[in-house]
Amino acid sequence: MSGRTGVWFIGARGSVATTTVAGALAIGAGAADRTGCVADLPGPDAAGAPDITDLVFGGHDVDGCTLPKRAEALAQAGVLPAHLPAAVAEGLAAAEARVRPGATAGDAGRSAADRIAADLRAFRADNGLDRVVVVDVSSTEPPLSEAAARATATLPALEAALDAGTPDLPASTLYAYAAFRADCPFVAFTPSPGPRPPALAALARDRGLPWAGSDGKTGETLLKTALAPMFATRALRVRSWSSVNLLGGGDGATLADPAAADSKTASKAQGLRRILGHPVDGPLHIDYVPDLGDFKTAWDHVAFDGFLGTRMTLQFTWAGCDSALAAPLVLDLARLTARAQEVGRSGAQAALGFFFKDPAGSDEHRLAAQWDALVAWCAELGAGPDGEAAR
Amino acid sequence: MSGRTGVWFIGARGSVATTTVAGALAIGAGAADRTGCVADLPGPDAAGAPDITDLVFGGHDVDGCTLPKRAEALAQAGVLPAHLPAAVAEGLAAAEARVRPGATAGDAGRSAADRIAADLRAFRADNGLDRVVVVDVSSTEPPLSEAAARATATLPALEAALDAGTPDLPASTLYAYAAFRADCPFVAFTPSPGPRPPALAALARDRGLPWAGSDGKTGETLLKTALAPMFATRALRVRSWSSVNLLGGGDGATLADPAAADSKTASKAQGLRRILGHPVDGPLHIDYVPDLGDFKTAWDHVAFDGFLGTRMTLQFTWAGCDSALAAPLVLDLARLTARAQEVGRSGAQAALGFFFKDPAGSDEHRLAAQWDALVAWCAELGAGPDGEAAR
Amino acid sequence: MSGRTGVWFIGARGSVATTTVAGALAIGAGAADRTGCVADLPGPDAAGAPDITDLVFGGHDVDGCTLPKRAEALAQAGVLPAHLPAAVAEGLAAAEARVRPGATAGDAGRSAADRIAADLRAFRADNGLDRVVVVDVSSTEPPLSEAAARATATLPALEAALDAGTPDLPASTLYAYAAFRADCPFVAFTPSPGPRPPALAALARDRGLPWAGSDGKTGETLLKTALAPMFATRALRVRSWSSVNLLGGGDGATLADPAAADSKTASKAQGLRRILGHPVDGPLHIDYVPDLGDFKTAWDHVAFDGFLGTRMTLQFTWAGCDSALAAPLVLDLARLTARAQEVGRSGAQAALGFFFKDPAGSDEHRLAAQWDALVAWCAELGAGPDGEAAR
Amino acid sequence: MSGRTGVWFIGARGSVATTTVAGALAIGAGAADRTGCVADLPGPDAAGAPDITDLVFGGHDVDGCTLPKRAEALAQAGVLPAHLPAAVAEGLAAAEARVRPGATAGDAGRSAADRIAADLRAFRADNGLDRVVVVDVSSTEPPLSEAAARATATLPALEAALDAGTPDLPASTLYAYAAFRADCPFVAFTPSPGPRPPALAALARDRGLPWAGSDGKTGETLLKTALAPMFATRALRVRSWSSVNLLGGGDGATLADPAAADSKTASKAQGLRRILGHPVDGPLHIDYVPDLGDFKTAWDHVAFDGFLGTRMTLQFTWAGCDSALAAPLVLDLARLTARAQEVGRSGAQAALGFFFKDPAGSDEHRLAAQWDALVAWCAELGAGPDGEAAR
Repeated sequence: MSGRTGVWFIGARGSVATTTVAGALAIGAGAADRTGCVADLPGPDAAGAPDITDLVFGGHDVDGCTLPKRAEALAQAGVLPAHLPAAVAEGLAAAEARVRPGATAGDAGRSAADRIAADLRAFRADNGLDRVVVVDVSSTEPPLSEAAARATATLPALEAALDAGTPDLPASTLYAYAAFRADCPFVAFTPSPGPRPPALAALARDRGLPWAGSDGKTGETLLKTALAPMFATRALRVRSWSSVNLLGGGDGATLADPAAADSKTASKAQGLRRILGHPVDGPLHIDYVPDLGDFKTAWDHVAFDGFLGTRMTLQFTWAGCDSALAAPLVLDLARLTARAQEVGRSGAQAALGFFFKDPAGSDEHRLAAQWDALVAWCAELGAGPDGEAAR
Repeated sequence: MSGRTGVWFIGARGSVATTTVAGALAIGAGAADRTGCVADLPGPDAAGAPDITDLVFGGHDVDGCTLPKRAEALAQAGVLPAHLPAAVAEGLAAAEARVRPGATAGDAGRSAADRIAADLRAFRADNGLDRVVVVDVSSTEPPLSEAAARATATLPALEAALDAGTPDLPASTLYAYAAFRADCPFVAFTPSPGPRPPALAALARDRGLPWAGSDGKTGETLLKTALAPMFATRALRVRSWSSVNLLGGGDGATLADPAAADSKTASKAQGLRRILGHPVDGPLHIDYVPDLGDFKTAWDHVAFDGFLGTRMTLQFTWAGCDSALAAPLVLDLARLTARAQEVGRSGAQAALGFFFKDPAGSDEHRLAAQWDALVAWCAELGAGPDGEAAR
Repeated sequence: MSGRTGVWFIGARGSVATTTVAGALAIGAGAADRTGCVADLPGPDAAGAPDITDLVFGGHDVDGCTLPKRAEALAQAGVLPAHLPAAVAEGLAAAEARVRPGATAGDAGRSAADRIAADLRAFRADNGLDRVVVVDVSSTEPPLSEAAARATATLPALEAALDAGTPDLPASTLYAYAAFRADCPFVAFTPSPGPRPPALAALARDRGLPWAGSDGKTGETLLKTALAPMFATRALRVRSWSSVNLLGGGDGATLADPAAADSKTASKAQGLRRILGHPVDGPLHIDYVPDLGDFKTAWDHVAFDGFLGTRMTLQFTWAGCDSALAAPLVLDLARLTARAQEVGRSGAQAALGFFFKDPAGSDEHRLAAQWDALVAWCAELGAGPDGEAAR
Repeated sequence: MSGRTGVWFIGARGSVATTTVAGALAIGAGAADRTGCVADLPGPDAAGAPDITDLVFGGHDVDGCTLPKRAEALAQAGVLPAHLPAAVAEGLAAAEARVRPGATAGDAGRSAADRIAADLRAFRADNGLDRVVVVDVSSTEPPLSEAAARATATLPALEAALDAGTPDLPASTLYAYAAFRADCPFVAFTPSPGPRPPALAALARDRGLPWAGSDGKTGETLLKTALAPMFATRALRVRSWSSVNLLGGGDGATLADPAAADSKTASKAQGLRRILGHPVDGPLHIDYVPDLGDFKTAWDHVAFDGFLGTRMTLQFTWAGCDSALAAPLVLDLARLTARAQEVGRSGAQAALGFFFKDPAGSDEHRLAAQWDALVAWCAELGAGPDGEAAR
């Protein structure tokens, strides 16, 4: 694939975006390897997608902390290597210079959408980009209100609501609308509504644009979808599966709000039920423990029955860094979605379900089956629009 | 599939065999469900194999504790439901009546093989069985000595050694030899050498017999092969994987002998390296803690790197009952191997690797990929020898 | 100590009371040892208290499931040995015959108190008992309402409220009132208000009666009060302490009600803060997972700083049986409180804080310090009322 | 206490000594607080000991990596804060300048002892120190050989062996001999023989010198001695206690040698048996996992019985940094042992058992009881040699 690809973040100064940009710069400078990056593994084999080093970053944000300052804070917290922010200072400053003010509360009507789309077009034009993928890595929003659900049920309803300046359209959905209007594919890395309502899906289809979502599968849910098939294929009956997530950082603070947490817990819960084929008892907690910062600890307790009803248990503790787990997947998704657009795919890209807790366009949650689907899809993409080999 | 199938245990009075027999009887009596049994799940769909209720049990053992007594002890220990031994007493007594004295030390030459084969033929004839599958669930043996390796390198060498009465041929291999001579398929549920040396594999091929092995994948290794692909497909670099297994029971006592434990640890270690593609640091302990009885607790600690070298960990604790995990797999393997013989398969059945730590005939250790292979193989078996549907 | 001592349970047919009675009978019959019983250890040395075999059991309950039936259910669930209920059937039936209908909703006035006190006096007289200790092991109640707090602020206010038939006095407090009126010491084994309001404490003092409470320290909190002093005396700074309790059983169902859980979480939280000397961040969950029955699993995650701010963690998982942990402490408390009455102690017995999450009369939560206090107190009690040796 | 105190490390360039020196310098510069330092807590109240800021550091080492370089490596590994080595560079260089070549293999006779003692006297004189405490933080040695045991059985035997140049006297014991000859108290922070053989104890007594040991109780054993008393005082019967320690770093490499590990496991095992009053089943592993560096992860699994034989378990995982746990205790021990010398104490200081896995002069392993003993002893020391208040 020739040319350059833009990656436009909703939440450009947050931990995930900053880690993504700093990491891509480090890889470009030969100061880091591609640990955690899936697209370049044997199997996906890059799929003809643009390389990490071909990406140009920009984005919207409402937070005043600049990308370089965020990078410093992340290095202090042990998320980024101590000396990385200084080593990639120039690139961080360049990305920071491309950040535009994000949409704020009440800023949800036609004019806001137009402004966002104009920012996207300017980013593409100013940087001589072939295409721009918009990636939502901003704070988790609550599920749609009833009014918002009505307003996004059909495309005409949405257009009317935008004209009327409907106030409670979620920002993520406004961004998705603007992205599609500006001919940009969209990646929903959070559980926010974003491109998922029918009106948005219709718009993407109309404009021939691919999108992917939602809610990056980075930690406890990743483990669940790797482990639950083991219980299913071994006919071991899961009686309860209890989950606790302790996390600090910005995401933890957002999820301390029960309304926002509803989106996340709904997203997290569905895979297990789908894989096991029945509902499973047990709590699912997300707790804000500020002290833990970007490092998350999850504990899961699984009680199951074996032969003749013998009771057994599995427990696991996962201690991971959310931003470090998310960032390489963001790079993968931006690259693969860009390639999907190039070869003419549109609509929800079900084969990208491997990356998500709540895979748009698919009911498949089993991690290994998702991997197989991703590999097959990448082989098609690698073959190019007409079937000839890419590059 | 019509007719009846015999299951002949090496180690017929041990915990695994007793749990298997008691469980099959309970299922036949409608007193237990098939939790833990894989062959009847959607996917394998029984593969045309004999039903659990069509199995007839017998076996060899050197231990004097009878099957009904062992069942009582297992009920005391919480492995079997408290009232099960009484409920299936008649069936246990019938199985006990079919137990023959096992081969003992020094009893490894031609005459011993002939005696074993005669026992197998008598079991088949006396019970009007269509076929008999031999399943080794006896104590783990050490790896082959150099002399035994030479003696089992080729079939002529083995025949000569048997004629000479070579003393250090492992019992499991003697049993496998006798089984093949008596036209019985063989399932190696332990890591003992059994049918794995070249001479035995050649004999099975010559006589058109299927076999499967080795070392049932029931606990910690099962988890490893479910989890390691997650690290591999997410490009997370595993730096160390430390494993501790605490177990009592007869298996624990056997494995307290370092020579026997060598077989087990070698069997356990290989999957991880194969799946991750590189050797992995970290100890692998198997400790005998008599107090724990048949319940095993395994703790694994995985240290891995994510993006930009961020250090993360996964720990899990598995508290399971070994006999209860093994017994349903023994039923599955006996049934599926019987069916394989019926439709004319011979040699190591690679598709049964799903059940084993050290899959004969296959390098595939990833649990989900093994499941896919099993399902495909079962579909072939279900279609019968000529391709028409079975039953 | 001569003579016999009665133990009267509020909640006589619940899991804790049934396990206590069945266990005492088993010990009396020589069918069980005193594992879990503290009073007979070196140190306390029984303190001159009545022996377990000198106890006579009765109680109130509103549940219709009889003691023998409850014992059967507990044996099924693995809480009691399988054959114990049959072995002590006679004793269980005798205790069941002494159970009287408990107070029900709205049944909170003077007449109810009189009826309860009459039941206690009849139990003492009918069985020729020297004294009767009342032990509350019934379901956890919510904290006092404002009206109930006013009604129990002083003894005159309480008497007036009883005369007026005040409806929202908690049952536990009504029982404590009746117990003191009938000259019975009281043990509050739950976090319910019981004898803790000022009016009740005054009544106990007036009548020269000892009492003890509250909320038996049986599991996670026990561990916390053993571990937190380690952090304190090693100057390790605890940054967060997160706790999750998964439990089924009746207690789990009660605590699924947020109002009742408030009593429990308040009781559980205070020790940590007191021992560490500062508030500690982190959630404290109590989750009802019916599947787990009487077995509780608690997971705690402690994040702390060492020298130069180095971050470290401790996690623990406690898998225990609540009734089996509580029952021997109930025996200890009944015996020691009876002895305290015999030697003339009155009021809250601070030295029994060793047994409680929320020790009445004491701010000491450190387990080892509580043990030292208990041993010293037992030595005093053992010396008898006048200082001469008891028995 | 007036004047200055020297701290002389055996192993002056190792992780523990370097962390200790860097930490003391940081505290002196106001760049770190005293987290992890016990002596200044309420209770010990410093005991009249010299302040951390009054300490002067030097030592022996055979390793060529300088203290400033080691500090850099520790900062890279996350043991020291990233910017600390630069901030205290001057102090590190000053300590490095006071390091002398350590004793090497075969260097175990009279002349070596004389050279070491001369180094100690020179350190004291050159720096105008009131006293010098020698602290062994070097690599763990194997238990005494039979010959060495004979050579250290009595002081005359030791003197004769030194004159004869006996080759297999452990270095730690040679250092202890030289320290006592040079009138220096000694702290054995490792499980090496050091001052423990009778000959050394006699020498310390003869010369009126206090000493303390052995093997700093920093992690898993610390937890064991906090938790085991809980089981004992609650009459819960511990059936097995299994322990696994995964550690990298220099200590891990040393302990990968089974002979050295013997010292450590013997030291670790004894407390449990002493506290519980009976031997306890279960393995005790120390595994070298280089990847983990200075961070150690320990997993313990405790199986215990409650009332009526109900089976329960406790597991814990401790993830700590050994050097950061050890360093503040080294400061405490140096200060308190200096004070003990000042007030005229001699011989093994049993009250310092709080700090050790294998407390010299004491059988008390219960952490809380050790704390009480330490507090009482500190009160005596604080009162000074004649009973008047210190300072």
